[in-house]
Amino acid sequence: MYGYMGKILRVDLTRGEVKVEEVKEGFYRKFIGGAGLAAKIIFDEVGPGVDPLSPENRLVFAVGPYQGTRAPGSGRWIAAARSPLTGIWADSCAGGAWGPEFKKTGFDALIVQGRAEKPVYIWIKDGEVEIRDASHFWGMDSYEAHDAIIKELGEPKAKVATIGQAGENLVRIACIMSDKHAFAGRCGLGAVMGSKNLKAVAVRGTKEVEVAEPGKLEELCKELYPKIAEGAAAFGAHGTPFYMPVGYELMGDVPVKYWSQGEFISGIMALGAPRYTEKIFVKKEPCLNCPIGCHRYIKVEKPEKYACEGAGPEYEAIAMFGTNCLVDSLEAVAKANDLCNRYGLDVISAGALVGFAMECYENGWITKNDTGGIELKWGDGDAVVAMVEKIALRKDLGDVLAEGIKRAAEKIGKGAPDIIVHVKGLDIPAHDPRAHLSMAINYATGTRGACHERADPFCMELGLVIPEFGLEKPTDRRSWVGQAFATIKYQDLEGMCDCLIQCKFMAFGGCTVTDKLNLLNAITGWNMSMEEFAKTCERVFNLQRAFDVRMGVSRKDDTLPYKMFKPVHPKHSLIALEPMLNEYYKLRGWDPDGKPTREKLVELGLEDVARVLYG
Amino acid sequence: MYGYMGKILRVDLTRGEVKVEEVKEGFYRKFIGGAGLAAKIIFDEVGPGVDPLSPENRLVFAVGPYQGTRAPGSGRWIAAARSPLTGIWADSCAGGAWGPEFKKTGFDALIVQGRAEKPVYIWIKDGEVEIRDASHFWGMDSYEAHDAIIKELGEPKAKVATIGQAGENLVRIACIMSDKHAFAGRCGLGAVMGSKNLKAVAVRGTKEVEVAEPGKLEELCKELYPKIAEGAAAFGAHGTPFYMPVGYELMGDVPVKYWSQGEFISGIMALGAPRYTEKIFVKKEPCLNCPIGCHRYIKVEKPEKYACEGAGPEYEAIAMFGTNCLVDSLEAVAKANDLCNRYGLDVISAGALVGFAMECYENGWITKNDTGGIELKWGDGDAVVAMVEKIALRKDLGDVLAEGIKRAAEKIGKGAPDIIVHVKGLDIPAHDPRAHLSMAINYATGTRGACHERADPFCMELGLVIPEFGLEKPTDRRSWVGQAFATIKYQDLEGMCDCLIQCKFMAFGGCTVTDKLNLLNAITGWNMSMEEFAKTCERVFNLQRAFDVRMGVSRKDDTLPYKMFKPVHPKHSLIALEPMLNEYYKLRGWDPDGKPTREKLVELGLEDVARVLYG
Repeated sequence: MYGYMGKILRVDLTRGEVKVEEVKEGFYRKFIGGAGLAAKIIFDEVGPGVDPLSPENRLVFAVGPYQGTRAPGSGRWIAAARSPLTGIWADSCAGGAWGPEFKKTGFDALIVQGRAEKPVYIWIKDGEVEIRDASHFWGMDSYEAHDAIIKELGEPKAKVATIGQAGENLVRIACIMSDKHAFAGRCGLGAVMGSKNLKAVAVRGTKEVEVAEPGKLEELCKELYPKIAEGAAAFGAHGTPFYMPVGYELMGDVPVKYWSQGEFISGIMALGAPRYTEKIFVKKEPCLNCPIGCHRYIKVEKPEKYACEGAGPEYEAIAMFGTNCLVDSLEAVAKANDLCNRYGLDVISAGALVGFAMECYENGWITKNDTGGIELKWGDGDAVVAMVEKIALRKDLGDVLAEGIKRAAEKIGKGAPDIIVHVKGLDIPAHDPRAHLSMAINYATGTRGACHERADPFCMELGLVIPEFGLEKPTDRRSWVGQAFATIKYQDLEGMCDCLIQCKFMAFGGCTVTDKLNLLNAITGWNMSMEEFAKTCERVFNLQRAFDVRMGVSRKDDTLPYKMFKPVHPKHSLIALEPMLNEYYKLRGWDPDGKPTREKLVELGLEDVARVLYG
Repeated sequence: MYGYMGKILRVDLTRGEVKVEEVKEGFYRKFIGGAGLAAKIIFDEVGPGVDPLSPENRLVFAVGPYQGTRAPGSGRWIAAARSPLTGIWADSCAGGAWGPEFKKTGFDALIVQGRAEKPVYIWIKDGEVEIRDASHFWGMDSYEAHDAIIKELGEPKAKVATIGQAGENLVRIACIMSDKHAFAGRCGLGAVMGSKNLKAVAVRGTKEVEVAEPGKLEELCKELYPKIAEGAAAFGAHGTPFYMPVGYELMGDVPVKYWSQGEFISGIMALGAPRYTEKIFVKKEPCLNCPIGCHRYIKVEKPEKYACEGAGPEYEAIAMFGTNCLVDSLEAVAKANDLCNRYGLDVISAGALVGFAMECYENGWITKNDTGGIELKWGDGDAVVAMVEKIALRKDLGDVLAEGIKRAAEKIGKGAPDIIVHVKGLDIPAHDPRAHLSMAINYATGTRGACHERADPFCMELGLVIPEFGLEKPTDRRSWVGQAFATIKYQDLEGMCDCLIQCKFMAFGGCTVTDKLNLLNAITGWNMSMEEFAKTCERVFNLQRAFDVRMGVSRKDDTLPYKMFKPVHPKHSLIALEPMLNEYYKLRGWDPDGKPTREKLVELGLEDVARVLYG
């Protein structure tokens, strides 16, 4: 079979057992790989009774047909599980080189279940699997553990995906780090690793991925690499921080003061491009097979308290720790980001939690008694940095925040539950739905909660449409009309990117849906039609939604928080979510409660899912 | 027991049986009367398996503590059942003199169940009950039947509530008429009468209602009558048509072209006050005990085709048949209204259906083949009049429309289901939620669907607040903030008006909540506190909601139609329903799906209801 290794590895940490399962081509053609593959496994094996932090949860690492080939943007992998942060579907995608390396060991996915008695890590080398003691790595931060494991293995070419202390401490916003610059950030999958006593997964593979039409693939790559590099030049030049002044200027699309304030020009200018590039940028640190190279390697020397070096903050981090906390010190933001990298925290949720805590502090709902003496004032970089550490180590208020925004707000009480900005427990990232109404319906319906990676239809404002799926022209960002349709197309396509797996930024460089399908066909030899491709995208999205529905999600959860209905920037609009939701369900073929109908599931070839949902 | 007769009459038309049931004072204190009393009976006796047009449905006629006393605005009665139009809770309130007369026969309510073999009417005289043949009245219009029954009985003082042909024909928007100028209009309760082969209920009572403190009551009345008359002088002078230019000017609160157009000044000027008064007004026709006298007796002589005489159109009728259909002929509107009165149709839903049909016709979704040759063009008064008749008699397209807006749109297909303007199957009346956002959350959550009578919080714009319930000042009509709270207070209070029963217009004249409670206490001697009163209001509303929940209503149904999210008048605002809904549920103590929690039901003393809903 072309494009796949045909095998899934299953590791039961409770029993110390390793199994290899064979997979047929029909299965791949239906779910493609990555998030699609993982969704099928997790839907089948994880019911609503399974606590996300219990041994019964499944943690799936997966890749897709692009990994191990030279397809542009293919230096990626995903992790998936039932989320300890949200209780619903979670997949989290990262770049680097771990993904292709993993695939070359001979597997398309790794399923981890059970819980090891003591800390362990999994070592996979060309099909050989070992569960190894990790007691001596426990307590290390992610960078330390990464280097120490490679050293212990004596395999300088091994790639390591690991957690820091946050994952060990079951912090519900803990991430998984790979390659020292790639993060499976969202939904707390690092805590799932921690709950299994699994510190890391190290891989080294030299097996080749067989490609159906190598010549055709090479031809496509030759065309695409320069096209993407040129088309996404701004990304290459400044990384994602290029977006901060652009998004702010175009749409007011930057969170300020935990979403309560409109303007913060000084912060925007201090944190985004070009100041970022001038002040802290050292070099690009591209993922494997990337024509763009948006990842930054940065260095801060002064002030000393913020000194740090390594993977630099992306747009999300400078927004969530910066403007969101009224902080205009790029160095403080870089430091907070660096601590997240090392401790292993999702920068988006961490920044959201700190902004939230600052608002609580301002309102007197928490005091210095709670924070361990920190004056949690807006704009205070020191406070931000200190709080990141407290969350990772569960110190003082950090222990409360470590439970995630919803549980933290409940615990703090008073007005706290009314000010939190999340959907289904996942903090809204630094793209404001008031800036582009498509993001409102996207956040409300996203299968892992509020996420700009599972769909970013605000990019219509940058001209990005999807004609192959019938989205010929951008919507009006201020009007709800047409947003449901556009969002569905974006969600379907970008969900598919997490199956193939391809970095979504390739699209900015002009890698079209046709290109993606051509790559897939060249690799697999399937000669898949655009129609089948679109249906496959839809299948995967509905499967994830079905998982959520099984976990209790319904229309009541497809909502937005209070603050989102109050425009604060002159370019913001009032969100009319209801008509978008009604239209969305209709277009999706879901019932008015947001449940995929039996007919829709059957149409998508998900009869077994229909049986679970409808009996 | 003061203020009540202590007895409920039950008539089983299948068996031809009459029973009298005694009621204890505690029951009244809990549910007061009218819609509260009926809600308890219907909740207990009508489950989700009962087809509204089947013999198993219950049709309850009820009055409250005010009836039979001189309390201002007490010339009222209600009918209630599971609605054949919406499938959920339905109560429909009418004025006139039937209510007090019924009470004086010795009953607080009449429950009708079963189905007579042949057409019958019920005759109640001072406790004596007869089921009489009505075959010779079947086919008569409501005015004819009214007069013929009184004549047959030889009781010139008898009061008659009857249906016209529409009710006989099971038209799902059929009303019940009493006193030739009072209509229990909404939700199709006339069809429930028709389904039971019940043409009319005639009553003559001379029993006295015992009042706890007659002196106190008289004192209150002496104060209230002139106060209300003066405060509601505009209502008295011009009837409800006074509102048309006012609401339009203040808020754009008049439907135009089936809610698709903003301005229609010529229609507003031609239909509303003062032209209405100048052109067709003959005399006031006040309900019993009314200090205002808003009901109009009108006469049209020319053009001959529109000649008519009798109860005149109210604001709702001139809006729904007039501006809503782009008709600016007051005479045509009066004729359409007169036909509704006689055939027994709800003018609001009838006007909505005609407007809807005109839009379908314009779009080519229906043609002359469907309409029986009528050119259903916007603004054509002849077409409106013709369509009313067709609906009542189920001719041509009228047979489709007679099924109500939702079923009709499904039947017509094409784009029709997307343009209909209703909530839960009940057509939105002539108050636009885009004009005052409180009406959006009110319509979405009303226990009988979209209704301005079950709450009219847009009256905050006219200065009406409810300080006794904590609503001290009006909200900003253009903002969603605070609307949920205000609407709840309005809903609770106005739901209570239908229990007491008191005409809601008394409030315009300054009859405050305190006044209402004072009247209740003077009549019953209960010395009820404002706190208990407020709790009682809440209890009744929750009981009705519980009925709806049992019928399948949830958050998915608490929505608004597509058109409502598109402002069309310069004074309209975009509706942000979602945050209002979230706030509303929270304030109500309902879960995020809109279901009253077990705790809330128990707190309200509705343990038995909680058992039904939660097992």
